[in-house]
Amino acid sequence: MPLPDTDRTIAALATPPGGGALAIIRLSGPAAFRIAARFTSPPQPAPAHRLVRMLQVKDGSRLLDTAVAVFFRGPSSYTGQDTVELTCHGSPYITRTILNLAVRAGAALAAPGEFTLRAFLNGKLDLAQAEAVGSLIAAGGEAAHRASLAQVRGELSGRVRALKGSAVRLLAELEARLDDLYEETPPVRIAAFLRGAAALEKETRGLAAGFETGRGIREGIRVVITGAPNSGKSSLLNALLGYDRAIVSPVAGTTRDTLETKTEIAGFSVVFTDTAGLNAAARGKLETEGIRRAEKAVSEADIILLLKDSSVPRTASDKLAALKAGELAAPGTPVIKLLTKADLRPAARGARGLKTSCRTGAGLAGLRRVLVAKQQRAFREGAQAPVIFARHFEALSAAAAELARLQAIMKEKEPPLELAAEHLRGSLNALGSILGETSPEEVLADIFKNFCVGK
Amino acid sequence: MPLPDTDRTIAALATPPGGGALAIIRLSGPAAFRIAARFTSPPQPAPAHRLVRMLQVKDGSRLLDTAVAVFFRGPSSYTGQDTVELTCHGSPYITRTILNLAVRAGAALAAPGEFTLRAFLNGKLDLAQAEAVGSLIAAGGEAAHRASLAQVRGELSGRVRALKGSAVRLLAELEARLDDLYEETPPVRIAAFLRGAAALEKETRGLAAGFETGRGIREGIRVVITGAPNSGKSSLLNALLGYDRAIVSPVAGTTRDTLETKTEIAGFSVVFTDTAGLNAAARGKLETEGIRRAEKAVSEADIILLLKDSSVPRTASDKLAALKAGELAAPGTPVIKLLTKADLRPAARGARGLKTSCRTGAGLAGLRRVLVAKQQRAFREGAQAPVIFARHFEALSAAAAELARLQAIMKEKEPPLELAAEHLRGSLNALGSILGETSPEEVLADIFKNFCVGK
Repeated sequence: MPLPDTDRTIAALATPPGGGALAIIRLSGPAAFRIAARFTSPPQPAPAHRLVRMLQVKDGSRLLDTAVAVFFRGPSSYTGQDTVELTCHGSPYITRTILNLAVRAGAALAAPGEFTLRAFLNGKLDLAQAEAVGSLIAAGGEAAHRASLAQVRGELSGRVRALKGSAVRLLAELEARLDDLYEETPPVRIAAFLRGAAALEKETRGLAAGFETGRGIREGIRVVITGAPNSGKSSLLNALLGYDRAIVSPVAGTTRDTLETKTEIAGFSVVFTDTAGLNAAARGKLETEGIRRAEKAVSEADIILLLKDSSVPRTASDKLAALKAGELAAPGTPVIKLLTKADLRPAARGARGLKTSCRTGAGLAGLRRVLVAKQQRAFREGAQAPVIFARHFEALSAAAAELARLQAIMKEKEPPLELAAEHLRGSLNALGSILGETSPEEVLADIFKNFCVGK
Repeated sequence: MPLPDTDRTIAALATPPGGGALAIIRLSGPAAFRIAARFTSPPQPAPAHRLVRMLQVKDGSRLLDTAVAVFFRGPSSYTGQDTVELTCHGSPYITRTILNLAVRAGAALAAPGEFTLRAFLNGKLDLAQAEAVGSLIAAGGEAAHRASLAQVRGELSGRVRALKGSAVRLLAELEARLDDLYEETPPVRIAAFLRGAAALEKETRGLAAGFETGRGIREGIRVVITGAPNSGKSSLLNALLGYDRAIVSPVAGTTRDTLETKTEIAGFSVVFTDTAGLNAAARGKLETEGIRRAEKAVSEADIILLLKDSSVPRTASDKLAALKAGELAAPGTPVIKLLTKADLRPAARGARGLKTSCRTGAGLAGLRRVLVAKQQRAFREGAQAPVIFARHFEALSAAAAELARLQAIMKEKEPPLELAAEHLRGSLNALGSILGETSPEEVLADIFKNFCVGK
């Protein structure tokens, strides 16, 4: 998959779609000024850097809107190329028509992430920084925002560069000896070399370990609410959110499809998934499909909330739900048992679980705390810039594995230095891929396709 | 209801909510520069007009984002007051946090339309122009956009001012005579006066008449799809839209609630409402509620599409649907009968209606044309700036009614000039209310509360 051509001039809506007071259309590329001049008046084919002008946007002779235009001259722009930002009225009709005008004047509609891809290709950002731009925008809470912003500002890149520096020093030691045909340099001091390699491996693994919490921080902690029909799943969702997201009715089976809602608890994003009840006597296509989706959600959860209506005796559906939660949960996933409707008279004594009541609010504050406890602990103790992308985690793990192999080799009686150097180069390669130094086009294309258009 | 104080500095998100590459926060009021300087770095407490700066947005010492700031000095700004526009990353977390920082620094969150209200109060726009700003943003198609933009640019205001000019000249004639205690001026020339008043009434009524199509242009033509369960309502909606908006299944009663979707046909906005089928044998709360909503939609339609599945014999539900459409339609509302599933073998010969098939596309192009025919005709023949607000229509009608009363009085043998002058002042008052010259605060508050926040 070849990367899009940076010689073309691209255009996109940079603000969220929909109606609002204002919207921004962004144009970037060699012909950005010339193209904008084709449909704005008075035309500014060669504007000064950071010039702001009130311009009329025209479709031929017909006035479309009046816009505030800001001109950025490359390389002092986000992409490194000439860029125009037009702030117009936020009407979908106006933004759509301006994009049409730009295309007619020679621009191409930007692909997702194409502005940021250009910033990377033009050396304005390294790849780890560029990737974090996407998660900075998506960040729904303070923790995700802090982690993303730190990465955009180069904190992770800095740590990766430091690891690379250590690996380069180890490699230099090996190469000096390898290049030295007349054995004039002293031999490699194996003990010191092994200490250095071990320290580097440990540091690399330490950085990678941050991903366990980093993923939850960036994507949100996936909490799936499951249980028998009418066990109070939707009521719990609404109570945790503080507003009526799901339709609640006393009719069992009101929730037919899984329903995802993101919220923030103590600065952390939490994605709640309300699911169809696991009905032991399920009938009909709709209900069966609902249950299939519920089971899929359970298998992908970070935390499972297993609900049991405490006011009625245990049913076949309750047993099914408990069985499925145990079967489907990924290894290590906590299953939290909740006894709902705790304001009613309990049907059985001694049932185990956290008692909650959506009517009185009992148990809800404690439940909220439990959901984010792990991330909160990690963020407090851990690094400021946890690894938040699977790609970086994999690259760090690969680099650490190469370093482990390196140490195994160097412990041999007559270490094959050539092979050892290969493993060091392998680890350097893996680390470099985080920064985009050694990433093939396919990897880049894959990264930027997940961005929003206009970024 | 008192209007909000213009001495306070207001802040709001000006771009649509949600995630995007960029977002704009707007601050306006006497302390706009000072407040922005409290949470941006380096602070710009006294910036030059239209200055663009890259600033760091800070929450205390913690960096939140880097933003492009544009400073506008009052009165050369949208509101007429000092204004700052901060373009930041379009993350909901970032925009929410910046608004919190602004409030902590002394700003108030803007009420809906408060920026435009200030533009009106500060004399930057008259009321008709200000109102049209809201509809300019909401305009979903070319026709609504053209009509709104013309009004923002003062075309309607110009025509209203011309009507006022004529009324003032008529009033001056009466007042000259009324002030002339010694009868030194010639008497009012009744015939010429009546001709002038009649011409003015006609022109006023002509302008008001444009509202009949103007309303449809601005709000969209409300097309409601009704019929018996499983008559193909949702399939028709999807076929007209060109994508699968509604869930379609062979199970009757799949659509439980009314479903509104806006689309554009030949530049005109059309709001389709898909409804629950009118089941003659309806049972259960959900279905009854669905039917209640369907009936309400039918009663508010501009055009009703009454569907009959041509492949099955006429049922009790078909009869009910036809009866309800006839009963509930507002006077003059066209009911278009459609025979759906025309690709199948018809169950009866000679059934009347437009044959459509969502499978083959038969009849759909013709149906689309019919839906916008009236508006299209009016736009082609009519004024460039049709009246698009009910308030203006009512004011014009009131002015015309006063002019009719004026003419009746002036045709009396000894016209009571004092009373005639009162009617002229009444019509001037009504016309002035369109421009906001004579609008009480309650009217203003009512107009701006329908705006989006940030405008």
